[in-house]
Amino acid sequence: MINFDETKIVENGKFIYQQREKIEGIADRIFDKKFDLLLFTSSGGSQAMLDPFAFYIRHMSKLQTENILSADLMLGACNRIGTGTVAFMTSKSGDTAETVAAARWLKEKGVYLVSVIGKENSLLEEISDDAIVYGEGRPQELVFYLMIGRILYRNGDFDSYPKFADELKGLAYALAQVRKQADEKCRQYALEYHKEPYNIWIGSGDLWPTAYSYSMCVLEESQWIRTKSVSSPEFFHGTLELLEEDVCTTLLLTEGVTREQDERVKAFAMQHTKKLTCFDCKDYELPGISDEFRYLLSPVVMAAVLQRISKNIEEITGHSLEIRRYYRKENY
Amino acid sequence: MINFDETKIVENGKFIYQQREKIEGIADRIFDKKFDLLLFTSSGGSQAMLDPFAFYIRHMSKLQTENILSADLMLGACNRIGTGTVAFMTSKSGDTAETVAAARWLKEKGVYLVSVIGKENSLLEEISDDAIVYGEGRPQELVFYLMIGRILYRNGDFDSYPKFADELKGLAYALAQVRKQADEKCRQYALEYHKEPYNIWIGSGDLWPTAYSYSMCVLEESQWIRTKSVSSPEFFHGTLELLEEDVCTTLLLTEGVTREQDERVKAFAMQHTKKLTCFDCKDYELPGISDEFRYLLSPVVMAAVLQRISKNIEEITGHSLEIRRYYRKENY
Repeated sequence: MINFDETKIVENGKFIYQQREKIEGIADRIFDKKFDLLLFTSSGGSQAMLDPFAFYIRHMSKLQTENILSADLMLGACNRIGTGTVAFMTSKSGDTAETVAAARWLKEKGVYLVSVIGKENSLLEEISDDAIVYGEGRPQELVFYLMIGRILYRNGDFDSYPKFADELKGLAYALAQVRKQADEKCRQYALEYHKEPYNIWIGSGDLWPTAYSYSMCVLEESQWIRTKSVSSPEFFHGTLELLEEDVCTTLLLTEGVTREQDERVKAFAMQHTKKLTCFDCKDYELPGISDEFRYLLSPVVMAAVLQRISKNIEEITGHSLEIRRYYRKENY
Repeated sequence: MINFDETKIVENGKFIYQQREKIEGIADRIFDKKFDLLLFTSSGGSQAMLDPFAFYIRHMSKLQTENILSADLMLGACNRIGTGTVAFMTSKSGDTAETVAAARWLKEKGVYLVSVIGKENSLLEEISDDAIVYGEGRPQELVFYLMIGRILYRNGDFDSYPKFADELKGLAYALAQVRKQADEKCRQYALEYHKEPYNIWIGSGDLWPTAYSYSMCVLEESQWIRTKSVSSPEFFHGTLELLEEDVCTTLLLTEGVTREQDERVKAFAMQHTKKLTCFDCKDYELPGISDEFRYLLSPVVMAAVLQRISKNIEEITGHSLEIRRYYRKENY
C-alpha cells in the first residue's frame, strides 16, 4: 500500500484529540456569551471542509448559520454580520492574504473569531479571539466535531454528544482502517480511469462539499483531470442527459440524511453508463465508532477513501500532487 | 435573426407588469403580517432563477433568508422553518411531483406560501396562500423584482424602489434590445464552439446561478455538451489549472457587487487560453433603465444574451432544444 503510515495517522489524530478540553472550553465560552449567527467562512477546499458543519447545524438545531466564501463575504454577501456573530475560519498557513483580509474585516464588524490553523504564531492567530493550532494533526474536521458538537449539546440538540466525543478518541485509528479497506478499489479506479477525458462527480448533503472539492482541488488542480461535479438532486435537472455507456461517473454515497438522493442517482446511472463507480461510506467498517454516529462521519470517511485514489493516482500518472502550472506560481 | 419576435417579447413583459398591483399587494401583506425567514425553494433552473433574490436580500438588508433545493428541504435542510417563514416557489406547470410535495411539506410546517406559476388552476396554486400566474409572461424574474423589491422598500432597504418599479414597465422592451445587440456575437460563439469537448463556465454573485444553470440546464440537458461551471472566486482554487490555450472558457461578467471577481478571472484567463469568451452585462444598452439600477439586472440581461446562443445553437447543431434522452422520458 503506497504512501501509508498507520502509526503517523494515529499520532496525527492524537495531536488534535489531546486538545479536546481546550476546544470544548472555546465552545462553552461561545455558548455562554450568546450569539445570533454561526458563520463558516474560508475558500476552496477549506470552505468545503467547513460546509458540513453548517449542514449539521441546519439539520440538528434551530440555530442560525451561514457558510459563505470569504471572497464573497467582504463584498457584502451577508449584511447581517455583526457583534452577535461567531465566525469559524480555517487556514493551513495562517497567513494567506485573502484569509487574513477576511479575518480583519470580520473583526472590524465586531465578530467573535475562532480560527483553526496549521502553524503556530501566524497572523491569523494574532487576529483571532480564539485559535486551535493543529500542526501535523489530522483530520482537521475533528476540531469541528468537538467544537460544533459541544455547542449543539449545550443547546439541547445533541444529547449523545459526550459519548460521541469519547469515541472520537479513536477516529484517526478507525480512518486508518478505512484506508486499508479502500485501497485496492481505489487503486483499480485510478488505473482504469486516470486518462478519462471527462469525469462526472456526484454527491449529496454532507458529502456534496467532498464531491465538489475532491474533483476540483485534487483532480483538476493537482492532476489536471477534467471534471464536472453536481449534487445528487441537481443531477436530475440537466447532467443526467450526458450519461452514455462510456461516460466516467463517480458517485459518493453518504450515510447522512440525504442518502436516498444518492441511491436514486445510483439506480439511474447503473442503467446508463458502464463506467459508474460508487464509493459508499456504508461499505467501510469503523472500529470503535457506534453505528448511531456514523451518519455524522461521512465527510471524514470519504476523505480517507479518496485519499487512497490520490496516493495511487500520482504514482500511476507520474504526476506528483504537488505540481502546479499557475497556483501560487503566478500573480493573479 | 433566428427565432426572434420583438412584439411577442414586449407583450409577454406586459402580461406580468399588468399584475404589478397584485404583486405589490402580496408583498405588503407579507410585510405587514411579519416574518422571521424568507425562503426561496425550487429545483434546477427554477432554483437558479430564484437564487439572485436571496442574494439581493442578503446584500441589501438584514432580513433573514435561505435558498434551499426542495429535495433537500424535505430531508431537513432547514430545521428553523416554521410559522414565521414565508416561502417563495416557482413552477412552470404547477404540478411537478417534487414541487407539489415540497409545497405540501411547507404548509404542514405552517409556512406562508407564495407561488409563481405558469399555468392557471394548478395543484400548486391550490396549495399556495398566494399565487401569481404568469402564463406566457416573461421574464418571470419581473415578478420577483416587484415582490422582493417592494418588501425591501417597506423594510427601509431600497428607497428608490418606486422609481425602479416604474422603469420595470419597459424591462421586456429593453431586454429585446439586448437580444438584438447580442445576437451576432452569440451566433459566432455557437458556430465556433458547439463541438468543443469541454467547456468551462464561470460567473460570480448574482450571475453565478446563471453560469451554473445555463451550462447545466441548456448546454448539458438540451445539447448534450459537456461543461464544468465554477464561480469566479472558486475558479482560483482548482479549475484554473485546467486552462491551456485550447480550453474553451466562457466568462459571464456581472454589473453587480462581485464584478471585481470576474475581472480577476478575465485578466488571468486572457493569458492562458485562446478560447476565452467574455459576455459582459456592461456591454449592453438598456434603454429606459437608469444606470443606478443596472447592478440589480445582470441575471435578466445575461439570460437575454444567452438565449441568443440557444436560438442559434439549435439551428447550427440541428439538435432541437426540446430533444431529451432521459428527462421526463424515463422514470427515475
